[in-house]
Amino acid sequence: MQFELNKEYIQEVQSCLRENLDASLLHDINQLHPADIAEIIDELENEEAITLFSILDEEIATTVLIELEEDVRQLMMNSLNANEIANRLIPNMDSDDAVDIVAELPDKKKDDVISAITDVEQASVIVDLLSYPEDSAGGLMAKELIKVRRDWTPLKCVKEMRKQAEDIENVYTIYVVDDRDKLLGTLSLKQLLLAKNDEKVEDIYYEDVLSVKAYEKSEEIASIMEKYDLVVLPVVDELDRLIGRITIDDVVDVIKEEAEKDYQMASGISSNVDSADSVRMLTKARLPWLLVGLLGGILGAVVINQYEDTLGLYPEMALFIPLIAAMGGNVGVQSSAIIVQGLANNSLGFDSMSKKLGKEFMVAILNGLVCSALILVYTMIYKDNLDLAVTVSVALVLVIIFAGLFGTIVPLTLDKYNIDPALATGPFITTMNDIVGLFIYFGIGHIMYSML
Amino acid sequence: MQFELNKEYIQEVQSCLRENLDASLLHDINQLHPADIAEIIDELENEEAITLFSILDEEIATTVLIELEEDVRQLMMNSLNANEIANRLIPNMDSDDAVDIVAELPDKKKDDVISAITDVEQASVIVDLLSYPEDSAGGLMAKELIKVRRDWTPLKCVKEMRKQAEDIENVYTIYVVDDRDKLLGTLSLKQLLLAKNDEKVEDIYYEDVLSVKAYEKSEEIASIMEKYDLVVLPVVDELDRLIGRITIDDVVDVIKEEAEKDYQMASGISSNVDSADSVRMLTKARLPWLLVGLLGGILGAVVINQYEDTLGLYPEMALFIPLIAAMGGNVGVQSSAIIVQGLANNSLGFDSMSKKLGKEFMVAILNGLVCSALILVYTMIYKDNLDLAVTVSVALVLVIIFAGLFGTIVPLTLDKYNIDPALATGPFITTMNDIVGLFIYFGIGHIMYSML
Repeated sequence: MQFELNKEYIQEVQSCLRENLDASLLHDINQLHPADIAEIIDELENEEAITLFSILDEEIATTVLIELEEDVRQLMMNSLNANEIANRLIPNMDSDDAVDIVAELPDKKKDDVISAITDVEQASVIVDLLSYPEDSAGGLMAKELIKVRRDWTPLKCVKEMRKQAEDIENVYTIYVVDDRDKLLGTLSLKQLLLAKNDEKVEDIYYEDVLSVKAYEKSEEIASIMEKYDLVVLPVVDELDRLIGRITIDDVVDVIKEEAEKDYQMASGISSNVDSADSVRMLTKARLPWLLVGLLGGILGAVVINQYEDTLGLYPEMALFIPLIAAMGGNVGVQSSAIIVQGLANNSLGFDSMSKKLGKEFMVAILNGLVCSALILVYTMIYKDNLDLAVTVSVALVLVIIFAGLFGTIVPLTLDKYNIDPALATGPFITTMNDIVGLFIYFGIGHIMYSML
Repeated sequence: MQFELNKEYIQEVQSCLRENLDASLLHDINQLHPADIAEIIDELENEEAITLFSILDEEIATTVLIELEEDVRQLMMNSLNANEIANRLIPNMDSDDAVDIVAELPDKKKDDVISAITDVEQASVIVDLLSYPEDSAGGLMAKELIKVRRDWTPLKCVKEMRKQAEDIENVYTIYVVDDRDKLLGTLSLKQLLLAKNDEKVEDIYYEDVLSVKAYEKSEEIASIMEKYDLVVLPVVDELDRLIGRITIDDVVDVIKEEAEKDYQMASGISSNVDSADSVRMLTKARLPWLLVGLLGGILGAVVINQYEDTLGLYPEMALFIPLIAAMGGNVGVQSSAIIVQGLANNSLGFDSMSKKLGKEFMVAILNGLVCSALILVYTMIYKDNLDLAVTVSVALVLVIIFAGLFGTIVPLTLDKYNIDPALATGPFITTMNDIVGLFIYFGIGHIMYSML
């Protein structure tokens, strides 16, 4: 029932496409789920992809288009003229998908497509939806929905819903509105099925309904739908009039993108890339943070240079430079990751900054003492040098405490000023902790050895 | 329409609970959405939480329970006896939630609760669901669903659905089965609404339906529902008989947990903790990777020690130890993160390992040359030492290439042997690259200076 794409299948498709068309294979492809067809097209070379796309059934092609990777979709859209897009693709789409497709077009073609749409109502829906920012409720919502009036009977509801349903693929919820379209509540299929014929909608509908305004941010929508376990969320305008609905499948993408963005930031990747992207794009996404790391390394060299005398007198201090730098980095990444994830999930609670720092301090002390004790024993046994052992282990405790506190303060502070706290994780915090760690280490070394 | 929890509200609730009960505030709380009530209870002290929970309306208390954090829920469950759980909570729950609650109980209490359930059918449903692993389709599914037979008329469907709907909160999809309960397809509300009276289900239902077997893994289910944009997915047994359905809201949690697990692993946190957990738990989750880092630091010291002579002769080499270590770590984390995310999203495509490595090699060369050129210029200007400049910049290119390739190979290899590739990110790869980076740096330094 489920399709598993493999390399052999792709090669078979490719050879069919090259040596002209083998009807049976292409017939098979038309039978697949559009998401599977999209997966196949994503793997093909440009020309092959356009050929395969062009011979798909019209309705299937529409859904495939939505499921394609963005760069492959661009390619397909470039192969179609404005009229084809306007009158062969768009009429088969839900309004939210249609607007996403149109929004991706270059300005000139966007205008051409909109003016080529023959269904005036559809054109105006798209123009309307285009006016909302992509990452807002308005940008995520579709206009297609089923609504009933509070004074209708169950029979009238079914009759009207029949009319409305003709345009709609999936019915998620039945909305109840007043005569000005103000959202009043919802009517579940269950309530409708169990209703008696002489009842009215207002007797049976459910009044408590969560809705969002059209300009609400997509992150906020994701967190509402997640918290309240919603499958669909109605969108209202400033006068609480029902204007659309957002379904969870679109929000799953937002949730995933958010999590991936944090992960990529923590890994030092500055834009949303995946391994299929070009060498140029991958390099561009990775170089910025490497340059931050490079600058950090240079500053580290400056710090060590400052303590050239100490290092000249006690060259064995060089041995533990990587240890100090690595531990500061690791602790900083850990503590900042816990804060960033807490902020993303709204699970930080209402403790004050000082209480949070107090807790991080305790954790750092515990981890620091364990690590320090181990390194003290190691250095005594293998180097038999008490001064070095004390220097390294005292520095290590201090570095771990500093890195833990710093990793807590920075994301909280960024968040306070509405800067993405995920910026604080990964290379930035590692680099900062490297430098400060070296200061601490050589500072203590300087004091220790100057006391001799 | 939406509730925003703040510290003042919590304090108000707390003082009401302490100075005996203020009926009006508690009445207000009962009006809130259960997810909001759960958020309030999560923030209270143990005794207060139990008190507030005990005075909630029965049906609300049930939903609140499901929304609580796991440790708080345990606390509430401990405050209830087996009979209360069996006959006051469970009858108000969907079967998937009921089984989650029962599964969390200690063995003895679990048995007591099951034998205390008076509704025999409900007890057998729970026993049945308990037999599936928690992270399988069976563990995620609920038994409540609406099904119609292929030979029914629309009228008969509506009549039968009325009966079935009484037990069901939300109707997502109407399933079509044969007389042996074998899943045949789905019937949308739209199809039912548009059907003529003399048609039968078999004339109008939609045959293509994706389903999963009861033992399918939850990650696999998440990726199916995501790929095909499903809101609900039916579960069948080995004979393709319909036994339950999984809704997207439960799968959103799986998707989030997966993403968070990868993020935490990359950040060096070894178990699922958040900042509200105790100092002991936080320390325990963080210490293991710090010890790995510590071991790496010690091995780094061993490597440098090996090249003591070189370092003794050319102490200025110490300056760039942090730079070499940091850059190796950063590049390794970047390349492994791209692979781990690609594996998680099934977006790696079908390129062979060697083609992937070839691409990573190109990216590494480009990044390496840019960084190297910069460090060459810096070292020449500020240190005016050609040997050092050449050593550092050649070592840097090699370290970046090695780290990039290593970060690509390790997660791909782990995945091949069914080990979680996310293990390869974060501290592990950083530590490995630190050590190898030092080898490369001092190795080249040794060669360079011995040529003098």
